[in-house]
Amino acid sequence: MTSQDTQLGDIGEAGLLRHLRARIPAAPDVPVGIGDDAAVVSLPRSALVTTDSLVEGVHFVRDSTPARLLGRKALTVNLSDIAAMGGISRHALVSLCLPSRLELSWVDSLYDGLLERAAEVGVSIVGGNVARSPDSIVVDVTLLGEVEAPLLRSGAQPGDMVVVTGELGAAAEGVELLRQGARLDDDAELSATGVWTESSAEAVLTCLIAQLDPRPPLALARSLAERGLAQAGMDISDGLSSDLAELCRQGNLGARVEAGGIPVSAAVSRLARAGGGDALSRALHGGEDYELLLAVAPARFEELQELASVWGVPVSAVGEFFEGPPAVRLRDDTGDRPLPVGGHNHFHPNEPEDRAG
Amino acid sequence: MTSQDTQLGDIGEAGLLRHLRARIPAAPDVPVGIGDDAAVVSLPRSALVTTDSLVEGVHFVRDSTPARLLGRKALTVNLSDIAAMGGISRHALVSLCLPSRLELSWVDSLYDGLLERAAEVGVSIVGGNVARSPDSIVVDVTLLGEVEAPLLRSGAQPGDMVVVTGELGAAAEGVELLRQGARLDDDAELSATGVWTESSAEAVLTCLIAQLDPRPPLALARSLAERGLAQAGMDISDGLSSDLAELCRQGNLGARVEAGGIPVSAAVSRLARAGGGDALSRALHGGEDYELLLAVAPARFEELQELASVWGVPVSAVGEFFEGPPAVRLRDDTGDRPLPVGGHNHFHPNEPEDRAG
Repeated sequence: MTSQDTQLGDIGEAGLLRHLRARIPAAPDVPVGIGDDAAVVSLPRSALVTTDSLVEGVHFVRDSTPARLLGRKALTVNLSDIAAMGGISRHALVSLCLPSRLELSWVDSLYDGLLERAAEVGVSIVGGNVARSPDSIVVDVTLLGEVEAPLLRSGAQPGDMVVVTGELGAAAEGVELLRQGARLDDDAELSATGVWTESSAEAVLTCLIAQLDPRPPLALARSLAERGLAQAGMDISDGLSSDLAELCRQGNLGARVEAGGIPVSAAVSRLARAGGGDALSRALHGGEDYELLLAVAPARFEELQELASVWGVPVSAVGEFFEGPPAVRLRDDTGDRPLPVGGHNHFHPNEPEDRAG
Repeated sequence: MTSQDTQLGDIGEAGLLRHLRARIPAAPDVPVGIGDDAAVVSLPRSALVTTDSLVEGVHFVRDSTPARLLGRKALTVNLSDIAAMGGISRHALVSLCLPSRLELSWVDSLYDGLLERAAEVGVSIVGGNVARSPDSIVVDVTLLGEVEAPLLRSGAQPGDMVVVTGELGAAAEGVELLRQGARLDDDAELSATGVWTESSAEAVLTCLIAQLDPRPPLALARSLAERGLAQAGMDISDGLSSDLAELCRQGNLGARVEAGGIPVSAAVSRLARAGGGDALSRALHGGEDYELLLAVAPARFEELQELASVWGVPVSAVGEFFEGPPAVRLRDDTGDRPLPVGGHNHFHPNEPEDRAG
């Protein structure tokens, strides 16, 4: 009945809903899943809920974003939020706005990614919505989770260490690489290096994966929250400078970051050496890292390091919180100065580095 | 700092988020509300969750839709889903996609409506998201509720009565009236009657209110579910013909509707008499009524009528379910024939009567 060329306008909203519902597996632990006016779920502990959307032309460009990876990322950006609260993700709702001329095969690839990522992390899709959009695609995911001891943005204390997981800057570099013509295919294989030669292919691949298929440290986030190893925390979505300023506001503290301690992505450093970019700036302001930013009491840092090594996640102490007005300072060889928030403004037209929140 | 003419591009995403957060009251029963990576909520019974969006150019036209009423409706369409499951709505997340050139005052009016409607029904807004949209406005609300005895779409039995609440057809007539230039202002007062004269003003107002500010029978839905007065039910969002076909599919039953028993909106009938439309067709296929469609055992109908009269909601028995392949038949003076599903297709461009699901 459907072919490669089938467009959504050919099958209609009801047809698309039936098609998608048939693809979504029934979850054994969900009393009422997809297909009623609302889903019934059972969350024995406190429930976590978050929502985040990816908008075509703002957070992604259709031509340079494989649909399957977009599906994965639409779930991942929400997984990162639930994990950053110390929670376990359980159930998702997927709300799509789709133009009539979009091919059904594109939506199927999006769902391939969504379902695959959901299966990886044990999340069931329990509901959602499809609506026609006049032009742009919007993928809006709401995620429910559960938590025992939520890790909040407030709670940092003077003397706490500023700690980040993983490496920073690669996802933002990935946006620039996409703009220069580098591409991944639907299987996340490198299909074009853009302006870069083969010798940089590995670094290009790393940055594109970071942008198109990020992998937040979900298990570490949950287990460190359960052990109370951080006083405060959040995921790094807007960029270290911006998100650390938020932890400072919520804790009513200042923070100082050591430039030499920032875990700049090795791939970004490599490309910057070859092409002349500013790797540290990407790491400080780039955003979309989906790593963790934590306030950790010095006495607990070793325990955190041990736990992180179990999950294979690097952790770096990059500075400290201190009593003072909420502001972030950066110290390097030349001294100590205010770190400007890497201000990007999603509402500013033609803003080069929009991203998911 | 802001004026009537402030546009979203002037204050940015962070500025808009701060502005909106300052407007949203803290909910006493929510452990962690807006401002963290996710909200923490506590739902003692089974949790209900649903999501629905209103898309500019598909579900509403900006010029003819007062922003405050749009805010109310964005919540209401979800309230209707939670109520149709027999639940109580508790917490909402609001995800907005907004163009940069939109005035902040428009967003404020939208939030006036959202917050006002939330307060009316005891819902707290616990989170959400704002994203830039290249062009169209999308208002996506996710609603959490709780339920003890969910009312499902499946469960109708042969011999059950087909019951609807309220009157049907006015919301769909409202779409046509808006197209003809009739208007409500932000206070839901009639500001233009379009092609109609003053003598029809009351009927025009009724239909516009039904379209722009629907009032589903929330309390009746919950209390009838708690008493087990219906075997199956759902809200009428796509139109009686379409939604009854869905109850038939889910119950694996046929249903027959008596044309004479359909509670056609008196306002629609009045306009049809004056202007020559087909009021019965609007009531059967129009959609967006946000009334209840129920399967009720004949022995329980009187009890349902008594309960409905407590809440001031009319109920009408319009037909019955019978053993047979899932299909809906309509009986009138001329006989008994299949009732075609009033097929509207949200993905068909220029479809005249798109609506929220």
